[in-house]
Amino acid sequence: MNFSFNLKKSNNKARLGEVNCAHGKIQTPAFMPVGTCATVKAIKTRDIKDSGAEIILGNTYHLMLRPGADLIADFGGLHKFMNWDLPILTDSGGFQVMSLSKIRKISDEGVEFSSHIDGSKYFVTPEESIIIQNKLGSDITMIFDECVAYPATYETSKKAMQRSILWAKRSREAFVEREGYGIFGIMQGSTFQDLREISAQELVKIGFDGYAIGGLAVGEGQDIMFKVLDYACDLLPANKPRYLMGVGKPSDIIGAVARGIDMFDCVMPTRSGRTGQAFVRSGVINIRNAKYRTDSKPLDDQCLCCACQNHSRAYLHHLVKTNEILGAMLLSEHNIFYYQDLMKDIRSSIAQDNFDHFYQKFLKTQ
Amino acid sequence: MNFSFNLKKSNNKARLGEVNCAHGKIQTPAFMPVGTCATVKAIKTRDIKDSGAEIILGNTYHLMLRPGADLIADFGGLHKFMNWDLPILTDSGGFQVMSLSKIRKISDEGVEFSSHIDGSKYFVTPEESIIIQNKLGSDITMIFDECVAYPATYETSKKAMQRSILWAKRSREAFVEREGYGIFGIMQGSTFQDLREISAQELVKIGFDGYAIGGLAVGEGQDIMFKVLDYACDLLPANKPRYLMGVGKPSDIIGAVARGIDMFDCVMPTRSGRTGQAFVRSGVINIRNAKYRTDSKPLDDQCLCCACQNHSRAYLHHLVKTNEILGAMLLSEHNIFYYQDLMKDIRSSIAQDNFDHFYQKFLKTQ
Repeated sequence: MNFSFNLKKSNNKARLGEVNCAHGKIQTPAFMPVGTCATVKAIKTRDIKDSGAEIILGNTYHLMLRPGADLIADFGGLHKFMNWDLPILTDSGGFQVMSLSKIRKISDEGVEFSSHIDGSKYFVTPEESIIIQNKLGSDITMIFDECVAYPATYETSKKAMQRSILWAKRSREAFVEREGYGIFGIMQGSTFQDLREISAQELVKIGFDGYAIGGLAVGEGQDIMFKVLDYACDLLPANKPRYLMGVGKPSDIIGAVARGIDMFDCVMPTRSGRTGQAFVRSGVINIRNAKYRTDSKPLDDQCLCCACQNHSRAYLHHLVKTNEILGAMLLSEHNIFYYQDLMKDIRSSIAQDNFDHFYQKFLKTQ
Repeated sequence: MNFSFNLKKSNNKARLGEVNCAHGKIQTPAFMPVGTCATVKAIKTRDIKDSGAEIILGNTYHLMLRPGADLIADFGGLHKFMNWDLPILTDSGGFQVMSLSKIRKISDEGVEFSSHIDGSKYFVTPEESIIIQNKLGSDITMIFDECVAYPATYETSKKAMQRSILWAKRSREAFVEREGYGIFGIMQGSTFQDLREISAQELVKIGFDGYAIGGLAVGEGQDIMFKVLDYACDLLPANKPRYLMGVGKPSDIIGAVARGIDMFDCVMPTRSGRTGQAFVRSGVINIRNAKYRTDSKPLDDQCLCCACQNHSRAYLHHLVKTNEILGAMLLSEHNIFYYQDLMKDIRSSIAQDNFDHFYQKFLKTQ
């Protein structure tokens, strides 16, 4: 079976689709829980699956440092190493190399950097990133790119975008075709429409199985992000999946779906869960708030997660206030369930030609 | 149904029995996972149940401080507050008041102390401890006692033992009889046989539903503990359950069963799990050890826990080395499964008149 994308239906720009890859099918719009270090933090793989997640994301940068790509390859790849048998997408490490490591030198050849963990030196090239992702056995490989911070000058954005195109070509060439495995390009260009246009054109010329929009969700805010998405999605081929990297809040996701995005990933549900924040159908609650001390209701009475099915807000409040690990576990899992339910609701609404109404209704809860 | 103990069988001093209480039956010898703050740390209640645990322990001291006994009572008791529907034993808070809090004043009346969390002042009497345990809804209430550190002089041990007898009487009187709910006395006297004898006699005169041995596992070591148990169990009525508080390592437990103990509790399986230590049938392993980095075997191939059924030692090594919460979760759960399996094996061996052989075989694995 080839890697493929089946666009089933559209409501204006919102799209309902299905990605087929080596480890299974992914209904889109899809949200990918982030499993940085070969674990979606504080959640068992069984519970991630129970949430309805059909794909998770692994971070190449973290995994190459610990436990190392060769070790994971020896175990038969990341799926087997962490015991997750559904699809996995890995980022290329580009974003983390820029944001987490101490960069020694960046050139057209690649990036020399020191690990944020122990200071040890690495040199990653586009080819090396693709080789690592091959060792990890990712269903979806991402090209190695240079992502600039926000705000960035036009010149900086242009140079990084041009380098990213060079690296996209080299990434594409280094990618080993295997049945069911795909590689995505990443559009750059910051908030400059002409740079985004060039980036998209060049990526499409190279030809990828899907296209990501990078360089957003880096501090520019929702308004600017949406403005970029308003034109950026139209620059990409309709018959390939579109992935908005590192996004985001529920309102970001639904607004991006409205603009034509099919795939998302973000640490928000798990990171928020570890600090006591819960996403619920009525908005966001901070379970540390004193008003939940005596609240006998579940977090969200429509949710099927372990926390909502078994425990009160008062109990969760107690767990979080006493820094109990179970608090982080239950809230992280709940938030992943919430995100997957949100994606299911988005998909149903598109299937029923009802997405715009669903979007308007959603905005009223925020 | 009254609170009762059914002694089914003995192999020399080792006993097979069954405790009946309000929330169910407990097969003995039994190990009670410790749920200090209304959670067995890092484990969902469903998974505790799956381990085979039939009773857990709650800590009165911690729960009275956070979230408070009245709040738990408003939620219908600790069972409902934490959603655990099998039996719960609560300690009286005596041990933690002495070991964790800043004691202001101890007298025959009770103990005035400051919370180790925020310094707020409390005054706990035997009556108050029993009232709190009643609010928590414990199936098994423990008397409020004074536990001395090891080593303690004869005079110190004698005074604390005598005060504990006074407090045992007041605790017994304050206990509200309810069908299926019981109260246990606690023998003190440190390592002095004559004090242990007086303590046991006085407790039996008062009359309890079970008897605990306190003041052990406080640093005296296994040899001295076993020497005390050699005579201490014989001082207690055969038709009531005997509970060795705060014990222990697997070899402590099996040695104590050989001396006539029926019930145990200890933080060891969960606390060890959070630091990377796993109990397995071949002994104890520290998963942080570099030799597990590439070990594709499960922790213990006979164990049915989530970690052993789904993950390699190499994966667990990775999780613990990267401080991932999932590492603490999986190892804690595994250790609780190990302890419950150990108790099942102990019970089977007694049922088959084979305990001594089982004990000898066990010692060879250590």
